[in-house]
Amino acid sequence: MNENKTLLNAFKQTAYQAGGHGKRNAGILKQALSEVDAQAESDMYGSGKSIEDFQEKMAKYLGKESAVFFPSGTMAQQIALRIWCDKKGIKKVAYHPLSHLEIHEEDGLKELHGIQPILLADKDRLISLEDVVSLNEDIACLLLELPQREIGGQLPDYKTLEAISAYCRDKGIKLQLDGARLFEILPYYKKTAAEICELFDSVYVSFYKGIGGVAGAILAGGKEFTEESKIWKRRHGGDLISLYPYFISSDYYFEKRIHKMEQYYQEAKEFAALFNGCEFTSTKPLEPVSNMFHVHIAQPKKKLEPIFIETYEETGIGLTSYLKELNENECYFELSVGDAYADLPKDELGKAFQLLDTRLKELKEEIPLT
Amino acid sequence: MNENKTLLNAFKQTAYQAGGHGKRNAGILKQALSEVDAQAESDMYGSGKSIEDFQEKMAKYLGKESAVFFPSGTMAQQIALRIWCDKKGIKKVAYHPLSHLEIHEEDGLKELHGIQPILLADKDRLISLEDVVSLNEDIACLLLELPQREIGGQLPDYKTLEAISAYCRDKGIKLQLDGARLFEILPYYKKTAAEICELFDSVYVSFYKGIGGVAGAILAGGKEFTEESKIWKRRHGGDLISLYPYFISSDYYFEKRIHKMEQYYQEAKEFAALFNGCEFTSTKPLEPVSNMFHVHIAQPKKKLEPIFIETYEETGIGLTSYLKELNENECYFELSVGDAYADLPKDELGKAFQLLDTRLKELKEEIPLT
Repeated sequence: MNENKTLLNAFKQTAYQAGGHGKRNAGILKQALSEVDAQAESDMYGSGKSIEDFQEKMAKYLGKESAVFFPSGTMAQQIALRIWCDKKGIKKVAYHPLSHLEIHEEDGLKELHGIQPILLADKDRLISLEDVVSLNEDIACLLLELPQREIGGQLPDYKTLEAISAYCRDKGIKLQLDGARLFEILPYYKKTAAEICELFDSVYVSFYKGIGGVAGAILAGGKEFTEESKIWKRRHGGDLISLYPYFISSDYYFEKRIHKMEQYYQEAKEFAALFNGCEFTSTKPLEPVSNMFHVHIAQPKKKLEPIFIETYEETGIGLTSYLKELNENECYFELSVGDAYADLPKDELGKAFQLLDTRLKELKEEIPLT
Repeated sequence: MNENKTLLNAFKQTAYQAGGHGKRNAGILKQALSEVDAQAESDMYGSGKSIEDFQEKMAKYLGKESAVFFPSGTMAQQIALRIWCDKKGIKKVAYHPLSHLEIHEEDGLKELHGIQPILLADKDRLISLEDVVSLNEDIACLLLELPQREIGGQLPDYKTLEAISAYCRDKGIKLQLDGARLFEILPYYKKTAAEICELFDSVYVSFYKGIGGVAGAILAGGKEFTEESKIWKRRHGGDLISLYPYFISSDYYFEKRIHKMEQYYQEAKEFAALFNGCEFTSTKPLEPVSNMFHVHIAQPKKKLEPIFIETYEETGIGLTSYLKELNENECYFELSVGDAYADLPKDELGKAFQLLDTRLKELKEEIPLT
């Protein structure tokens, strides 16, 4: 904990931080509000022109009949799965073992909705068509996360996606897209959001990942589905009197960044290549398929931390605020490319990787030959 | 619907609107943010100095060990009841038939938590000690709403409150305070918030009623209780990456208005007296015990609407945006006094009531004598 704080502190003191869009501070909201008329009326419990306009805009963008703004994806996705379970009369859904629902939501799906998840695939790989076909239990819904965040943001090839979708339609299994990072994968697939969403019955997108907003999510699907989701939104306590701080900033940063996803993707590939050029280091995926990837370094945390701290202090560039131990000989961390990457001084970035590689090579020499 | 819109439109076009703090527009948030440094760091999933400071401040104000900020009271209260039910191993709670949980939350408590409510008292009166004592079912928790909003914001006398609290403590029944309007009743009881909260095991307060913030709520109680509430907050999808738009504005308007509750209370009594001076009209309570009251008029909606519209057009003062039909011969509406009341031109206000009374008296003459 204390050592970790040291890396975090060194990271915070750098002049440049490589990932994301810069610091998450109050300026993000202030900037989004700066162009909003003070007289502009608040939404009221999900009604009002401003929220309805944004919902319609996102429904159109996602190629769905209707869309509802939610304070969080956690809320939106539990509700989507609940609706499909109720519709089908089966309280079972399938998703990846490292789905957000399974590892980050304190079992909300089970505790609040009594829905049992069937975990498909292994923790270290994507869900395949075979995984779905060989399911020997009835499920109401399959949730696919694109990209699969916890394994570095991997993606199935598009044909697999189409095959899974066709299979589910044939079997009457509803398909929900966890599109927390949907915008970020459009350049790789070379598809529109609507084309991808066409394969799914319902879809959630987030506005504070690649878009860099304050918070908030959209859930989209057919009109009957979204109308029912509003009832559940109220039940969850998410039908706030005013959601405008979130959807106004979501819309603002959507407009500002939706056209930069190709740039982030290309930069992520460049950035990952720099890591892959270092000793003991490889990214997952080796070549990113979105703006994100994981960096794995096959060395113990206690050896890596001083190296990263030295690198930050020498170059002023912060690469990561943490190192997560996969086991005692391997660490990893996540990177998502946003606006910050383009602002890095490229000569200092080169120096940082040179130093990192040198220090990692020195660790190699330390290793006993036995 | 169409007639209702006409009254709403007439109301919207008035220069002065009598209730509340003025329009709920984006300026509310912009003003609260104007003093915040753009560099101020966001809270992160419930952590960070800014949210923790506000939570500590509210815990202290409410006289509780700990407090947690929630996006909504709906979420906070369901969670409070769930925690007490789990602790006691009884999935039953008691509350008033017109509790927010019963009539405004789409049965979230039942649908999400499987908790069965026992409705105490009748719809048109407060819960008494006798209601609680004569309960012949085991319950985990009793929820009391102070003031009872849907019957005009009535309050039990303080001795009754103390007696209910003592009885519940004796019987091991947890007591939850629905304090959506707790700040607003302090002048009547002549108590501090902490003194009132001392009678309860847990308490929720809102920041967009008398305080006039954007949205948000605090749930307070013992440390073990609030820690558990954070797990449920995540399950509900309320543990947002950034809640600062809400708690910053909550804090800002708390500071701005907490000392004005006595003024609102006195003004509410004055305002109610004006209504009570009109034909067919009486307020509930007859003398308000907070900043709120209901206005009942024993006339059909279709006769009242043109009178209100005329009054608005003649005086520029909007009294209500709607008339709710209690039955075909009686309407009512709710008023909450905030900053707007003090800004009303008092001569025009007098004229408005003169006109209202005159027109209502004319209705009296219309009534056939049979």
